[in-house]
Amino acid sequence: MEEIKVGLLGFGTIGAGVVKLLKQNSALLTEKTGTRISLKTIVDLDITTDRGVDTEGIILTRNADDVLTDPEISVIIELIGGYEPARSFALKAIAHGKHLVTANKALLAVHGEEIYAAAKENGVEVLFEAAVGGGIPVLSAIKGNMAGNRFSTVLGIVNGTCNYILTRMTQEGADFAEVLKSAQEMGYAEADPTFDIEGVDTAHKLCLLLSLCFGTRIDLKDVYSEGITSITSEDVDFAETFGYRIKLLAIGKMDGGKIEARVHPTMIPIDYPLADVHGVFNAVRLTGDFVGPVMFYGRGAGMEATASAVVGDIVDLSRSMCAGITRRCAPLGYLDGNVTTLPIKPMGEIVSKYYIRFQALDRPGVLARIAGALGARGISIASMLQSARSAADEVPIVIMTHEAREDDMRKALGEIDTFEVIRARSTFIRIEDNLE
Amino acid sequence: MEEIKVGLLGFGTIGAGVVKLLKQNSALLTEKTGTRISLKTIVDLDITTDRGVDTEGIILTRNADDVLTDPEISVIIELIGGYEPARSFALKAIAHGKHLVTANKALLAVHGEEIYAAAKENGVEVLFEAAVGGGIPVLSAIKGNMAGNRFSTVLGIVNGTCNYILTRMTQEGADFAEVLKSAQEMGYAEADPTFDIEGVDTAHKLCLLLSLCFGTRIDLKDVYSEGITSITSEDVDFAETFGYRIKLLAIGKMDGGKIEARVHPTMIPIDYPLADVHGVFNAVRLTGDFVGPVMFYGRGAGMEATASAVVGDIVDLSRSMCAGITRRCAPLGYLDGNVTTLPIKPMGEIVSKYYIRFQALDRPGVLARIAGALGARGISIASMLQSARSAADEVPIVIMTHEAREDDMRKALGEIDTFEVIRARSTFIRIEDNLE
Repeated sequence: MEEIKVGLLGFGTIGAGVVKLLKQNSALLTEKTGTRISLKTIVDLDITTDRGVDTEGIILTRNADDVLTDPEISVIIELIGGYEPARSFALKAIAHGKHLVTANKALLAVHGEEIYAAAKENGVEVLFEAAVGGGIPVLSAIKGNMAGNRFSTVLGIVNGTCNYILTRMTQEGADFAEVLKSAQEMGYAEADPTFDIEGVDTAHKLCLLLSLCFGTRIDLKDVYSEGITSITSEDVDFAETFGYRIKLLAIGKMDGGKIEARVHPTMIPIDYPLADVHGVFNAVRLTGDFVGPVMFYGRGAGMEATASAVVGDIVDLSRSMCAGITRRCAPLGYLDGNVTTLPIKPMGEIVSKYYIRFQALDRPGVLARIAGALGARGISIASMLQSARSAADEVPIVIMTHEAREDDMRKALGEIDTFEVIRARSTFIRIEDNLE
Repeated sequence: MEEIKVGLLGFGTIGAGVVKLLKQNSALLTEKTGTRISLKTIVDLDITTDRGVDTEGIILTRNADDVLTDPEISVIIELIGGYEPARSFALKAIAHGKHLVTANKALLAVHGEEIYAAAKENGVEVLFEAAVGGGIPVLSAIKGNMAGNRFSTVLGIVNGTCNYILTRMTQEGADFAEVLKSAQEMGYAEADPTFDIEGVDTAHKLCLLLSLCFGTRIDLKDVYSEGITSITSEDVDFAETFGYRIKLLAIGKMDGGKIEARVHPTMIPIDYPLADVHGVFNAVRLTGDFVGPVMFYGRGAGMEATASAVVGDIVDLSRSMCAGITRRCAPLGYLDGNVTTLPIKPMGEIVSKYYIRFQALDRPGVLARIAGALGARGISIASMLQSARSAADEVPIVIMTHEAREDDMRKALGEIDTFEVIRARSTFIRIEDNLE
């Protein structure tokens, strides 16, 4: 029986999951691929800590070249994360004719083009199902069975940390800072959670989703990104009152040849399946011109779920290698040469419904002035709530708007915030409730 | 540029969707496969009715042999449905070296083995994503990126007609017969709805899901199948009271080498994502040992969604044909020779929680007798509700049990139904609320 030898870079949580899966389900993998998939070498700076998985028969080394230049190894799994040395290692592996399987969304969002070009030149594949949605096989589906569709929308809850925090804020009425602290203690948030809570990780994943859905290069800098740090328990409550839940969404839309690429807290109706994605679970919802709306739901992170996606990519490679072919499908699903660079719609031009919260003095005429400033920009009000929650003289006023241009909305708020009766900077959250 | 010529058998709704997709997204398909996928010939008994799609340049014929034996055609799309002539046509196409793409679950559930064997002998592929869940790419995911998992459970809402009826019964408190009639008028149910409402269609689809998940042959006769015709609006109401919704589920489980294969109305907790699958939408939820729980959701039927799955299979074939290979992956995802025949667990041996509804005279001691008969079989009661809805002397009594063997439950009910205070045959619905 043929044997496919694999090398692993990065022996962290997911790496340990991959080692476990390849051992535990080795016979199953052979039944499905006809080959033995064997992990020959693991590279990590720490090769002594016990990861709780059986490494018998596997070479452990600190020297990446032991994997990158080993002629016996035909597939490299890159699970180091981050930009460097992941990028250099990936390029070196590719230059040595090895296929690349990676879970590294940051790497591909920023250096994808360089890596795909190198892979093309060297006739190897780059597979990265684990980079978005953990174990959820959404990227394979976009490249594979849904390939006949032109997509119009992709929405994703793709960061488990943010979704965990927002879920607990919703369920417990707790504050952001309080839940973040507890999430850190429980290991659901990093000690430095910036990448997650500021939406950067979600933006990386959105880049990959957009590239696959629309066959386009996306520059991470063009993705609008807003995290969840300014969401208050008050906003969560008001959302509930109006029948919405707040989720950090990756949003990609195709509108007349321009792409919307944005990551921000979003209110979605409570009866949308996406609103029921709780805790560390992830979901991606796509709309194709033929398939219609489709949603994929599952564990977005974790040792075992992510290992499932990594090994799925290795199975895909193994089947092609056994058939004696390579690059049956290009990294983004489009043939080389058919990936374009579509223009990104500036944020000011997007059209959305908005939830706006004002903190105003409880005086006659305040509402009229706010409504007037909105109306002057063509923004019409769908519903309004003024609540007297505190004993103070200030009251929160919440307005839900009909569809408006972001630019108009920001200008109206800029004007309203100069009113002396407005006591704090007005905040807003975009609403998605008109999905096909 | 290479050209792949396709023949279509059956110009019904889905056939029209395929014609539309291949025309409308022709350029996109070429960008992704590097070939022109062209529909050369359509076979149907009716070649004159306007299907509302552009058939310019396509040969329309009543003679299946014009497709089955045309040496230019390399892929046959079978959308006739049913057993014959679909089976004979499929076998003839395969014998002439043509790949088979089909949406025909009935055919594969009953004659799959014969067709897969013929395909193996002739070195062609059999792809059938459209046979389960319409446009939802769940079969590709099981065979593909999730291939590294041993699955323990698969649950599916895979019949749009039943789900539409149950959804309306739930939302309107309407009766089965009444909703069925309206569904027929609106085209959501066939004039003869037996296959759908008796669970036969769902059983066909379960056979395919089981074969892919567990690498096993399944005899349709071994699948326990119970439809939705005896569900009353009373059951729907009681379910709601206890926090459940009733869905017709395809249920497959692996338990110690034995397979549970059953289709029946099932109560699932309202907060499960599956409970939010409304109307004609479908969903499949799988649990793998690494990926954990995963759910796929989308349009389970209809011209365009199903066409997406059919064309997805053609894209898959095209990519392999361009690479000069075939049978990169066998029909069930397992290599030929690795598909086994696992034993099916008899229904009497399954363990479930149950909702039981008794219609009893309102007399002292009735509950004690019912509880006694259940207790004697080791069935313990989780909760109970006696409601006096009618002015009559009879009251419905509802009992929710803890886990019990089906055999014990049926025996206890058999005994209880002999009590003179019981006024109608007792009914029960199985509960699934303990999912990983």
